[in-house]
Amino acid sequence: MTPVTSGSLIVAGLGPGDDALITQEVRDAIDQATDIVGYIPYVKRIPARPGLTLHASDNRVELERASHALEMAAAGQRVVVVSSGDPGVFAMASALFEALETGPKAWLDLDIRVLPGITAMLAAAAQIGAPLGHDFAAINLSDNLKPWDLIETRLRAAGEAGFAMAFYNPRSKSRPHQFARALEILREACGPDVLISFARDVTKPTQKILTVTLAEARAEMADMRTMVVVGNRDTRRIGPHVYTPRSVT
Amino acid sequence: MTPVTSGSLIVAGLGPGDDALITQEVRDAIDQATDIVGYIPYVKRIPARPGLTLHASDNRVELERASHALEMAAAGQRVVVVSSGDPGVFAMASALFEALETGPKAWLDLDIRVLPGITAMLAAAAQIGAPLGHDFAAINLSDNLKPWDLIETRLRAAGEAGFAMAFYNPRSKSRPHQFARALEILREACGPDVLISFARDVTKPTQKILTVTLAEARAEMADMRTMVVVGNRDTRRIGPHVYTPRSVT
Repeated sequence: MTPVTSGSLIVAGLGPGDDALITQEVRDAIDQATDIVGYIPYVKRIPARPGLTLHASDNRVELERASHALEMAAAGQRVVVVSSGDPGVFAMASALFEALETGPKAWLDLDIRVLPGITAMLAAAAQIGAPLGHDFAAINLSDNLKPWDLIETRLRAAGEAGFAMAFYNPRSKSRPHQFARALEILREACGPDVLISFARDVTKPTQKILTVTLAEARAEMADMRTMVVVGNRDTRRIGPHVYTPRSVT
Repeated sequence: MTPVTSGSLIVAGLGPGDDALITQEVRDAIDQATDIVGYIPYVKRIPARPGLTLHASDNRVELERASHALEMAAAGQRVVVVSSGDPGVFAMASALFEALETGPKAWLDLDIRVLPGITAMLAAAAQIGAPLGHDFAAINLSDNLKPWDLIETRLRAAGEAGFAMAFYNPRSKSRPHQFARALEILREACGPDVLISFARDVTKPTQKILTVTLAEARAEMADMRTMVVVGNRDTRRIGPHVYTPRSVT
């Protein structure tokens, strides 16, 4: 049996989908792991090999998944929790620390590290051009873990202060009207001419990108596989590219 | 002479410093380049090889550098502009599109792509724990390209709306008093107990991380090699880690 002190837990970002966007640091961590833990589609991206156990779990069980990973690390395993994008941006890193906080004290001595990845917002921005080239805000539009009122407040605050914005989880089947409401607020706070880009399946073969003005934007342009990026008043098109200048007018 | 149509321009992110954080996509682009263009310390990270010309330029000449890269691409070269972090976050991508906008129309037909990288804010967050695990804003504190008043407005708006924040270029020798003023605004907008982390030389051997409350924060804790990350009211310590929970209290 491996002694307890040799266990480790890494939360690693796999990027938005294309394996060419994984860092060498994350590849090395996966190569050295004894156990991979994660949501089914992310674990599917890891090739099987002798000595590696894959633990795939369903969506919306982040805390159970994190506790399971911590238990295995405490038992001496080299555990890697895989996350899409960057684990620190609306992904597994915070869930891991929540589980650590409510778990046994001995877990606090574990060797825990977070390895960054290319988050969907920045992969989408690169495909669009440079829409986040000036100050910007990243907002999770899901109201699973915060009240919708707070989301409205943040949209308004960011728009009025001239931030560009990127939205994760813009629209789900269980709350189809909220994104339409978000677009209304954005039109009021930013004005109708500001550009908004819908980037679906970023870096995947099925990738599709659409840029329109806020006046033209419709809620149906987004689903849960879409990253939405809103520019500021200076954001413009140049040829096929959309970019936000470094200075303000 | 290579025909014009074969030229291409890639703006690629090298990440915050550690070569293990470069993606395979960026490595491949560098391997296939005929010309590398960039700020001196970033070009120094690219190994010399036959058939590759390195064009290193000084800081604060982003537009000239971008135009030079576009000219070479238009002449048929495979040009890679290297940027630290992610090129789309306070780096070379927006400068490239600014140069494209003011340059010859023929440049609009060029094959231009942006390849994302690990931006300093997310590399810093990973080392700190998960301080950006909830809605957050990214703000460039330099007033080179925007009025300081606007920076104050954005700090206040983001703090009052409960965003966590990450600051690029927090403090320079030419404007030592502004960061002290930023801290004052943050104490007012967020409260004195909110945690602030100073991450210097992230992912480099000289990396140093310090987390204090806003009440304890001093301007001298940051310089231009420091990423500053401010949490929200829920951000807390758990063992050696600092994280922001996914939900709000």
